[in-house]
Amino acid sequence: MQLNQIHIILVETSHSGNIGSAARAMKTMGIKNLRLVLPKQSIDEQAISLAAGASDVLEHAQYYETFDEAIADCQLVIGTSARLRHLQNSLIEPRQCGEMAIQRAVQGKVAIVFGRERVGLTNEELLKCHYHLNFPTNPEYGSLNLAMAVQLACYEIRMAWIALQNNPRIKPLVEYPNHEALEHFFQHTERLYKELGFIRNDTVMLKLRRLYQRAELETNELNLLRGMLTAVEKYR
Amino acid sequence: MQLNQIHIILVETSHSGNIGSAARAMKTMGIKNLRLVLPKQSIDEQAISLAAGASDVLEHAQYYETFDEAIADCQLVIGTSARLRHLQNSLIEPRQCGEMAIQRAVQGKVAIVFGRERVGLTNEELLKCHYHLNFPTNPEYGSLNLAMAVQLACYEIRMAWIALQNNPRIKPLVEYPNHEALEHFFQHTERLYKELGFIRNDTVMLKLRRLYQRAELETNELNLLRGMLTAVEKYR
Repeated sequence: MQLNQIHIILVETSHSGNIGSAARAMKTMGIKNLRLVLPKQSIDEQAISLAAGASDVLEHAQYYETFDEAIADCQLVIGTSARLRHLQNSLIEPRQCGEMAIQRAVQGKVAIVFGRERVGLTNEELLKCHYHLNFPTNPEYGSLNLAMAVQLACYEIRMAWIALQNNPRIKPLVEYPNHEALEHFFQHTERLYKELGFIRNDTVMLKLRRLYQRAELETNELNLLRGMLTAVEKYR
Repeated sequence: MQLNQIHIILVETSHSGNIGSAARAMKTMGIKNLRLVLPKQSIDEQAISLAAGASDVLEHAQYYETFDEAIADCQLVIGTSARLRHLQNSLIEPRQCGEMAIQRAVQGKVAIVFGRERVGLTNEELLKCHYHLNFPTNPEYGSLNLAMAVQLACYEIRMAWIALQNNPRIKPLVEYPNHEALEHFFQHTERLYKELGFIRNDTVMLKLRRLYQRAELETNELNLLRGMLTAVEKYR
């Protein structure tokens, strides 16, 4: 079922208690896959105590050394951050996030990524996300606790999942590449166009990344673009 | 504005930390009115620390000795509980709760009531609520933390409020009695029909309470029913 395809990824979390509370929040909504990128504290007593009946989520958590590895097998990556002004085009609210996640979970793995408690995700990490989740908080005080944000996101995913059970929408299935395949494409592009002397600073790749992440490249489109790169290489 | 009419009521909360986290959850969603019915621990350092930037919500919290006093001036009372099987008719989900709360907040105070960490609200308390909020949790593990439940409810209230800002629905205003007026009516009924020998056990009043809470008596209807009681008294 779709909820098994949802992966909650916590990046460099400072407090183990937040990981425990996030695990509990996830399980109450039927989401069990937790990935941890370099947590600052290991799972300790406090984490287990706050996880309450969701300690199995902690036990089965997967550990990663880098953000890229954690999202490598995911077809849709949604990142959260409070600093999102420059990401207007890809901003979504929790409700839309839930619907998107469940729709895409039919086909592959979906990652919802939460950054560090104080500073969130880096710009580089945000650029690797297809969408950016923004919580509609009080402009005077928008400081959502990490586990609370996980709770809200998982709640909307569950609501979308329940709606899907009650009214399954039949959609033509489109295949999407995972993050790794996209990353290969970006690196291939960068390498080739640097050799051609076209890329001389970071701006070009930033723009290309933004464009293709937003467009949510389909597998057949990616194959086409890679074919074009190869064609240029051969011509050269 | 409507968010100022929303009152979060926590009944006999055991852990001050949960009150602090609930305050933070409320404020992130723009809700600031907190009422506490006989909390087991007073607001201590842990509560203030977990409230983070929402300590003003704790400072302005109002204290009550009884559940009845805490809801006395509220026109709509929504109670939460996990044990809700017998309350089928009045069950609502968080989204509906948010819409209802905001719609009714145009006219008067709305209470969202959260019970004790372990045992929730008593049956007697639940009977005094017009609606019963049920979170669509995982049937295998539905143990939502108290502050998380507050977060979800406040989130849906905020979502409904944002929707109202964007698309204000013009509805004919109906006046609703507050809890105190309803309670007088129930007591009046019970007194009179006991004297008449009709009420001999608790069942009758339980049924009447359930009926009128569910129907959400309007003020003019309540006046009518009270008029009928007085008519019977005069006749006697």
